[in-house]
Amino acid sequence: MKLYIGNKNYSSWSMRSGVLLTAFGIPFEEVKLRFDFSEGSEWTRVIAAVTPTKRVPVLVEDDGFTVWDTLAITEYLADRFPDKAIWPRDARARARARSLCAEMHAGFTRLRTACPMNIEAFFPDVGARLWAEDATLRAEVQRLDAAWSDALGTSAGPFLFGEFSGADAYFVPVAVRLSRFGFPLSERAAAYRDALLAHPAVEDWVADALREQDFLAEDEPYRNSR
Amino acid sequence: MKLYIGNKNYSSWSMRSGVLLTAFGIPFEEVKLRFDFSEGSEWTRVIAAVTPTKRVPVLVEDDGFTVWDTLAITEYLADRFPDKAIWPRDARARARARSLCAEMHAGFTRLRTACPMNIEAFFPDVGARLWAEDATLRAEVQRLDAAWSDALGTSAGPFLFGEFSGADAYFVPVAVRLSRFGFPLSERAAAYRDALLAHPAVEDWVADALREQDFLAEDEPYRNSR
Repeated sequence: MKLYIGNKNYSSWSMRSGVLLTAFGIPFEEVKLRFDFSEGSEWTRVIAAVTPTKRVPVLVEDDGFTVWDTLAITEYLADRFPDKAIWPRDARARARARSLCAEMHAGFTRLRTACPMNIEAFFPDVGARLWAEDATLRAEVQRLDAAWSDALGTSAGPFLFGEFSGADAYFVPVAVRLSRFGFPLSERAAAYRDALLAHPAVEDWVADALREQDFLAEDEPYRNSR
Repeated sequence: MKLYIGNKNYSSWSMRSGVLLTAFGIPFEEVKLRFDFSEGSEWTRVIAAVTPTKRVPVLVEDDGFTVWDTLAITEYLADRFPDKAIWPRDARARARARSLCAEMHAGFTRLRTACPMNIEAFFPDVGARLWAEDATLRAEVQRLDAAWSDALGTSAGPFLFGEFSGADAYFVPVAVRLSRFGFPLSERAAAYRDALLAHPAVEDWVADALREQDFLAEDEPYRNSR
């Protein structure tokens, strides 16, 4: 199967699916389409033929069958590889994992818009200013902290439901944001953020992102140029 | 189990889960919390004790276990009632159903913000104006039409994957919006919209919504008063 992704440095949705596949040792071919929405670009030529939503990530089976949207890709992989515990085996842990992913999928909009994922960029000063000025953002980070802490409180660790699962893959990009902007977390949530960032599949992705060196102005609200 | 919901006339997310439970004949107790976010209101007193997200719908088992977020509730019910085909039985139809739900879950933001669900209100004039003026909204409706038409093209009908499934429940509120604002659809998509609105579980919900007679100004961008 192929996974179509965007720039590794910026594409938080791609990162979730890419990390998930790698973490579970599922063989796949990565097809990176540089974010360039101009007419005639590789993106514009290829993406429309692959997915009706024109968004990444999209998973394409060898016979052309496509699964789009990160959450649907997670569910598809869990269905297709039942021997791998992509979701927790326990029914209630699985339900909780899905509640957390769905909440992440449609929520935390202030955090996602004010702090776009940008793996190679550290903005502690911007983070301190946002933290001081933006009550909505603070509330979102505190909700995230509480959600993580609640799950971790009954987990054998180091991840939300013991071993690394689809829920953890869902929170990797936000762990990147939290670390790059330096937002404060409880001790338990900070340890989890660090465990996510230290996962080998995450480290691989981050290393690739750092090698990209592809500056996209529209994803750089806090820098105008390198 | 209990399903906590908001006003039936306005709460599109509640409607998805309520219709799903009713359509599949799953017994549940409905607990309606009127949208009133003021201090000391029933909403404010009850919701914080039920769910950490303070949002509806939320499903609560008899022993207090909670599942929040509509998509996670759908998955939980599919897990808990494997004898009911809440998702299509075919693996690829199921994957497609989940792609469509996830796309609906986080997408179509212009349609959702410009045209809030309001079951008892018909705004064909507003709809005609929005249709003429708003290219983003037109593109979203056309994408929805294409997504439906694509699934219906291989469906035994009348729903997206044959019999009514979790994917159909996900599109009920948008079918309400499309009908209330009178947006144009292809013949196939229009027939599907009408099939959704004619489902007995939808008709029951709509009848309850019409009985509410509870005008909430913040959900009424196109009317200031009755």
